[in-house]
Amino acid sequence: MTRQKILIDCDPGHDDAVAILFAHHHLDLVGITTVHGNNSLENVTRNALSVLELAEIDVPLAMGACAPLAQPLAASAGVHGARGLDGADLGEPTRKPIETHGVDFIIEMARHYRGELVLAAIGPQTNVAMALRREPRLKAWLKEITVMGGSTERGNVTPAAEFNIHCDPESAWAVFNSGIAIRMVGLNVTRRAGVNDADIARLMTSGRKVAGVVGDLLDFYLARQRERRGAAVAPMHDVCAIVPYVDEKLLSYVPAWVDIELAGRHTRGMTVCDLPARAGAVGQDGEVRTNALVAVDARSQDLIELVVDTLVAYP
Amino acid sequence: MTRQKILIDCDPGHDDAVAILFAHHHLDLVGITTVHGNNSLENVTRNALSVLELAEIDVPLAMGACAPLAQPLAASAGVHGARGLDGADLGEPTRKPIETHGVDFIIEMARHYRGELVLAAIGPQTNVAMALRREPRLKAWLKEITVMGGSTERGNVTPAAEFNIHCDPESAWAVFNSGIAIRMVGLNVTRRAGVNDADIARLMTSGRKVAGVVGDLLDFYLARQRERRGAAVAPMHDVCAIVPYVDEKLLSYVPAWVDIELAGRHTRGMTVCDLPARAGAVGQDGEVRTNALVAVDARSQDLIELVVDTLVAYP
Amino acid sequence: MTRQKILIDCDPGHDDAVAILFAHHHLDLVGITTVHGNNSLENVTRNALSVLELAEIDVPLAMGACAPLAQPLAASAGVHGARGLDGADLGEPTRKPIETHGVDFIIEMARHYRGELVLAAIGPQTNVAMALRREPRLKAWLKEITVMGGSTERGNVTPAAEFNIHCDPESAWAVFNSGIAIRMVGLNVTRRAGVNDADIARLMTSGRKVAGVVGDLLDFYLARQRERRGAAVAPMHDVCAIVPYVDEKLLSYVPAWVDIELAGRHTRGMTVCDLPARAGAVGQDGEVRTNALVAVDARSQDLIELVVDTLVAYP
Amino acid sequence: MTRQKILIDCDPGHDDAVAILFAHHHLDLVGITTVHGNNSLENVTRNALSVLELAEIDVPLAMGACAPLAQPLAASAGVHGARGLDGADLGEPTRKPIETHGVDFIIEMARHYRGELVLAAIGPQTNVAMALRREPRLKAWLKEITVMGGSTERGNVTPAAEFNIHCDPESAWAVFNSGIAIRMVGLNVTRRAGVNDADIARLMTSGRKVAGVVGDLLDFYLARQRERRGAAVAPMHDVCAIVPYVDEKLLSYVPAWVDIELAGRHTRGMTVCDLPARAGAVGQDGEVRTNALVAVDARSQDLIELVVDTLVAYP
Repeated sequence: MTRQKILIDCDPGHDDAVAILFAHHHLDLVGITTVHGNNSLENVTRNALSVLELAEIDVPLAMGACAPLAQPLAASAGVHGARGLDGADLGEPTRKPIETHGVDFIIEMARHYRGELVLAAIGPQTNVAMALRREPRLKAWLKEITVMGGSTERGNVTPAAEFNIHCDPESAWAVFNSGIAIRMVGLNVTRRAGVNDADIARLMTSGRKVAGVVGDLLDFYLARQRERRGAAVAPMHDVCAIVPYVDEKLLSYVPAWVDIELAGRHTRGMTVCDLPARAGAVGQDGEVRTNALVAVDARSQDLIELVVDTLVAYP
Repeated sequence: MTRQKILIDCDPGHDDAVAILFAHHHLDLVGITTVHGNNSLENVTRNALSVLELAEIDVPLAMGACAPLAQPLAASAGVHGARGLDGADLGEPTRKPIETHGVDFIIEMARHYRGELVLAAIGPQTNVAMALRREPRLKAWLKEITVMGGSTERGNVTPAAEFNIHCDPESAWAVFNSGIAIRMVGLNVTRRAGVNDADIARLMTSGRKVAGVVGDLLDFYLARQRERRGAAVAPMHDVCAIVPYVDEKLLSYVPAWVDIELAGRHTRGMTVCDLPARAGAVGQDGEVRTNALVAVDARSQDLIELVVDTLVAYP
Repeated sequence: MTRQKILIDCDPGHDDAVAILFAHHHLDLVGITTVHGNNSLENVTRNALSVLELAEIDVPLAMGACAPLAQPLAASAGVHGARGLDGADLGEPTRKPIETHGVDFIIEMARHYRGELVLAAIGPQTNVAMALRREPRLKAWLKEITVMGGSTERGNVTPAAEFNIHCDPESAWAVFNSGIAIRMVGLNVTRRAGVNDADIARLMTSGRKVAGVVGDLLDFYLARQRERRGAAVAPMHDVCAIVPYVDEKLLSYVPAWVDIELAGRHTRGMTVCDLPARAGAVGQDGEVRTNALVAVDARSQDLIELVVDTLVAYP
Repeated sequence: MTRQKILIDCDPGHDDAVAILFAHHHLDLVGITTVHGNNSLENVTRNALSVLELAEIDVPLAMGACAPLAQPLAASAGVHGARGLDGADLGEPTRKPIETHGVDFIIEMARHYRGELVLAAIGPQTNVAMALRREPRLKAWLKEITVMGGSTERGNVTPAAEFNIHCDPESAWAVFNSGIAIRMVGLNVTRRAGVNDADIARLMTSGRKVAGVVGDLLDFYLARQRERRGAAVAPMHDVCAIVPYVDEKLLSYVPAWVDIELAGRHTRGMTVCDLPARAGAVGQDGEVRTNALVAVDARSQDLIELVVDTLVAYP
């Protein structure tokens, strides 16, 4: 059986780092693109290269957009520390990004693996939106886009908006309105899928290099989550968007219509989800419109166990 | 022990009718004001008078606003039928509204029962907003406002907005930003607090006049809810805002900040709730702002049992 | 020939004071209502009473709304000084407002002078909007509303919005969308209709009590306009809305569609004017919608001369 | 004296065609990029190639974006006919676009002519925005951007918005907020800079090939402007953005702050211009912010004469 080909567009970020490691272990990771988000493009690119170096993963990495389409660059996400992946000294990576721009790399890979490639958009969606605008055929070339972002309920940056979408709402609009097949895993699911102290202890005491470093990283991340948000676990948001390609039973999805609020005073960047469960969701003509599969539930404990098992499996 | 004095601002509507009957039985209902919403002001006023007549409740009723502050009048809510309280022939009521305008009546009652009166706003909040603008002292005179409206999660008219708030978002803004103490019971709680076929059968076979008529009304209402929204129960939205003054253990509330989205393309009329549970809800200064107690849970079955018991207790 | 009956809803303010004096001299001024705007309701009410006292004008004055419908109260307009009518010591007026609320007084007068009364709305439109919502027949009872507010071009508070409309955009929306006949005189015309140093000297040296005091007031006002806005004249905004009932040739109007922007980030409170001159103003069906006569030109010099002549005519 | 290097980003369109011919004659036109707008990307690209072929202009042409960033593709502009440049049979051009994407070509040319190149953005600004996001150094490489778009007063597509900006407001936001030096020529100036019947007759009877064809094109365009907008002249919007590099005295500019309204109900796509003339434009700190030179006046007749002379000068 062939492993799913996947390209990850990300902004590491602790949970991005885990998502990369998870994807490489189980799937055919064809490359990485980076985008502003949890920290500056420079920092998230260095962090991504450090993760590849740490785990000796040989895939090309291309730098993408350093700012959102139609708003100023957002402040870095405090939970990841000053450099965006604090908690362990990863040193300066010796690897370099390829020359190709991230947007072009997405298009190239999609053309090359026509119909077979999943694009995992686990940061702000600036690169994806620019690629869709630049190459209209991208929509036909990609198998689907799996998104970590948004929420069917509440946000985290604002009461209504989740961080990734809030970083670049216009790009998210372009992606969700592109007509491309989308799987969305939002905060409503990911915030309950977190590692706890025991999971981190298991990583730190595993005697394995990769797991040890990741343990240190997540130890910092969980401490920040506790301090800033009173959270009991360190949510592994990003990996949740990869998990369905490894074990499809761990998350459940419903078809829904998702649009992005661009104009609200309090709701800019919100993923407005018209779920079938809404009283009144069906139009007067009986037609139900959908543009995404939206995750509504997860077997969080099994999911986290699979993730930790995977990390410990690295040498 | 003195019974809580309460004034109900409403737009009957099946669940409004139940709320009136419930409030009169348990509390000191000092009057009714009517407002556009589930149907035209004329129709909801007639419906309210019919309910008073049916149950021989002697309280004054004053007509209020026939349209929202800053948008066109919304279409009637289909679930209540063409006249807004279909399902039983209540005839034309012989009673009439008092001459006083609803807005003035709210102010008069609040001044009269200074510090003792609860205002139950279970329709669009146009009357309440106009009263607050007309008489700034109203804020000090009222004990609190209990609202049926909004949602901490999804809406029913749109994916983001609940009917009462969506009917007049600017009025709701004025109420929630008035500084007055507010209890909000939204769809997140009320849509699970519904009567089922067995409850309706109990009413219809009770051998009591009031319960029999209400049974017929709710039979129509449940059929409409089934047909339009696939609902298994007929939600008793409005009475949920009255229940806490009868049995405070039936609903649980958390302090929160609630604002009304006025400008969104997809979210106009949404109650944006900043609940303490939100990661990041606490400001950089550590301060938590609240302007409302927001219902987050209900013992729905007990609540409905109390409501049905009450209806059956009428002669 | 009968003189036009007029009721002035205002927030004095230097140019409001001139408008009152001008209206009383030429027309049948039936009363004054006051509204928050250039300063607090308390201050503008005292200022209005002082003007009536100064000129011995015996008309009732009723206090109206102290805050806008759906936004916080705006800061006072600096050009009018700390008390809203600085520049002369008018003392505390001995007169008092009547007991009736401003909103009710508007409705009463309109019913009394059915079909004959012009309502001059020369402050924020909160009272007018509340009157329209409270008494739907008001629309039929009023002859027309003449508005000082908005602009066909630029604003003064923001690049897009004029002060009166910006103070309460939702109320302005309610007025312009009410279906009532409206004359709008905006900044595009009024900012060129100003008194200069020579006009003020003429008032101050007239040897008349009223003109002398008004001269002092306008001397202060012009100094502020110079200092704050680099203006060469002190614009008599408000009186421009009264002038057409005295000499209809001094302003020219075109029929247009005017709506109020409520949602913009940069344009909230803007009067969006669809003038016939716009390329494309005519719909695909050839229909031209209009809801207002909008002033597009004035014989400013003649207008100001008439105003100064009027002021000097007072004893 | 060296001629100004210029790259034109356009969507021909009759006035775009004239702008290309004008620029090539007087300046060093280094290339053309095309963008959706007056018609589909395919049609405007063919039209641009046809113009180059007609006048034997040997410059590279690169295709850019076929849709705006964050809204659906707008309908074609009716005044230019079904194919976007109706009025003369230009045949199918034998030339082809280069392989490079328009966004990359803008970046390449700007890097190559570092500090010397003016980018003329005379269509929707999607290509420019994407280039700025893709290559942050573009801002330093370009000498300035000259824009045909927006208005200091009214719009043409809506009462508030001009066509080019309305076609892609988010891109315009990105350009005006980029920090790059901008010259903006809007409708307030360009709608008065039009060719009339006499001008067209002069072109048609000139006996020159290029002028003859352009005469036919403008004859169609003027007829459409008359029919649709009651216009007496056919406005040469786009060339107005080029003219200042040929004769700087034909237009006058003021420094101003220009922002793009993205959220308004009636004002989306409006260029909100804070001109120095605005009363109150100076902040409380006395600071005046500017991000553009905005054209406020033109010697329209001289400008059009220069344009027609130029067209007739072609063989």
